[in-house]
Amino acid sequence: MRLAITLGDPAGVGPEVSAAAVRAGLTEREELQLVLVGPRGLADRLAPGEPRVSAVCQNEFVGPRGVASAAGGRAALAALHAAIALANAGEVDGLVTAPLSKEALALAGSADRGHTGILARHLASGPVAMAFLGERLRVVLATEHLPLRQALAALTVERLVEVTGLFDAVLRRWPGLTRPRLALAGLNPHAGEAGLLGDEEQALLVPAQQAAVRAGYALSGPWPADALFRRALDGEFDGVVALYHDQGLIPVKLLGLGAAVNVTLGLRLPRTSPDHGTAFDRVGTDRVRSEGMIAALRLAMALVER
Amino acid sequence: MRLAITLGDPAGVGPEVSAAAVRAGLTEREELQLVLVGPRGLADRLAPGEPRVSAVCQNEFVGPRGVASAAGGRAALAALHAAIALANAGEVDGLVTAPLSKEALALAGSADRGHTGILARHLASGPVAMAFLGERLRVVLATEHLPLRQALAALTVERLVEVTGLFDAVLRRWPGLTRPRLALAGLNPHAGEAGLLGDEEQALLVPAQQAAVRAGYALSGPWPADALFRRALDGEFDGVVALYHDQGLIPVKLLGLGAAVNVTLGLRLPRTSPDHGTAFDRVGTDRVRSEGMIAALRLAMALVER
Repeated sequence: MRLAITLGDPAGVGPEVSAAAVRAGLTEREELQLVLVGPRGLADRLAPGEPRVSAVCQNEFVGPRGVASAAGGRAALAALHAAIALANAGEVDGLVTAPLSKEALALAGSADRGHTGILARHLASGPVAMAFLGERLRVVLATEHLPLRQALAALTVERLVEVTGLFDAVLRRWPGLTRPRLALAGLNPHAGEAGLLGDEEQALLVPAQQAAVRAGYALSGPWPADALFRRALDGEFDGVVALYHDQGLIPVKLLGLGAAVNVTLGLRLPRTSPDHGTAFDRVGTDRVRSEGMIAALRLAMALVER
Repeated sequence: MRLAITLGDPAGVGPEVSAAAVRAGLTEREELQLVLVGPRGLADRLAPGEPRVSAVCQNEFVGPRGVASAAGGRAALAALHAAIALANAGEVDGLVTAPLSKEALALAGSADRGHTGILARHLASGPVAMAFLGERLRVVLATEHLPLRQALAALTVERLVEVTGLFDAVLRRWPGLTRPRLALAGLNPHAGEAGLLGDEEQALLVPAQQAAVRAGYALSGPWPADALFRRALDGEFDGVVALYHDQGLIPVKLLGLGAAVNVTLGLRLPRTSPDHGTAFDRVGTDRVRSEGMIAALRLAMALVER
């Protein structure tokens, strides 16, 4: 199995957490082959002399570490595009991406806000979605980086059925799940309390749930969102379809670093990343935590395998 | 110390969890005096022969258990109003209320949706707010039972400063907190990412945070809501000001039953209740869980004492 690891923004914790993931992956899986993608002087020096690791290098990174810079953003973009080329050439079976900085992307003149949009343009032929998959909780987002009011306006029956389908497909590759039990989150308090507290459940979410069932997915709900994530954690559901960014990410992040891995659904190959950012304030300190990146590599291996 | 306990909707788990709380409270606190308020045949039989417990009874409850009914709603209302009378007469120092059913309230012809509105009319002279207080996480809601879109429209600088003040006042009575470090949650993903993902942070939340600081409160933010609750849990903040119902309650409920107690801020005396409902489906089974009601009684004792 061949996986590419991009080092992300080299001014952030990407190089450190990538190094930790490389060590963990090589120890855990004998047949693993890794391609490290990042600046010369970093990517080529993470695992010197290890025959199972190769490097694809771009220009050396000379910017300062621990801060967002145009150089960091350019380096992250160059690594990502090199990894996309590897994927499109069939050289790797999956991608693991260390964090980049939205601010650095903007400083580098990019209109993108993160990995997902770029990956969708180059490695997808249909819709994509962002999911967070962990042992204890699995969540897909129906909308992502939109202002909350715009996210509410962007919700449609079609989009909800689409993300349910993408989510169902990845969870069928999850150990033990042949027919994932999916739960749709409500939008209003108490899922609208039968219309007393809002009409989106009746007007949008119930029709979406019914359409998803007609399309063959085991989607129930809409359920009151406040208790739903606890119920999923307790094993009542295999995955939650969340309506907007914070609804899905508050529970994911509450469970802690490494508890869930960010996965882009709908790409031609599995792509995972840790559920944290560049952590500029921790670069070079003993507070760099690699659990998220290690978990991302493990999940990429599992998704490629199944 | 004298506390009233209302049994809530007698068709729900209220009588069972109240009985467990009475036993726990009497064991833990010698000087505790309890007044049980509920239907004859229930309130007067929870702790017979115990000199520290008395009962104020209303009509016997003859409806079926485990379902919402007009009789259950009427019984819950009668108990609540009797407890309010005790409070206004100075007969008790605090209230602990077992759950009632919004549906049963409606069947009983009440326009109220829960305890808070009724308590606010009878036991408050100013604004009130709903908070959830636990050892690990403390949250106040700036808006409560409103459809999400209406909640967003209802947020004002004035309301945010008001709930911050109510929250600050109760947390100053929390062990070890003389100047509570409060955190304001953002509304949009990544708290709007400097305006890229929404303008409510700049237009509303930053001015509210500044006004709260001018009013003397240690309020910071707005912070990205997805990571904020984890940061509070890890001890960086003493309490979180959440903007809408599910934003605050997803993390509270994820932490599990009994992890936080519902407290109404702004009343003339402390009032607590468990963070769960009537649990009609568990009545009479071995799945009735009393941790929430026991925690509510413990917190009422602590708030009265301080």
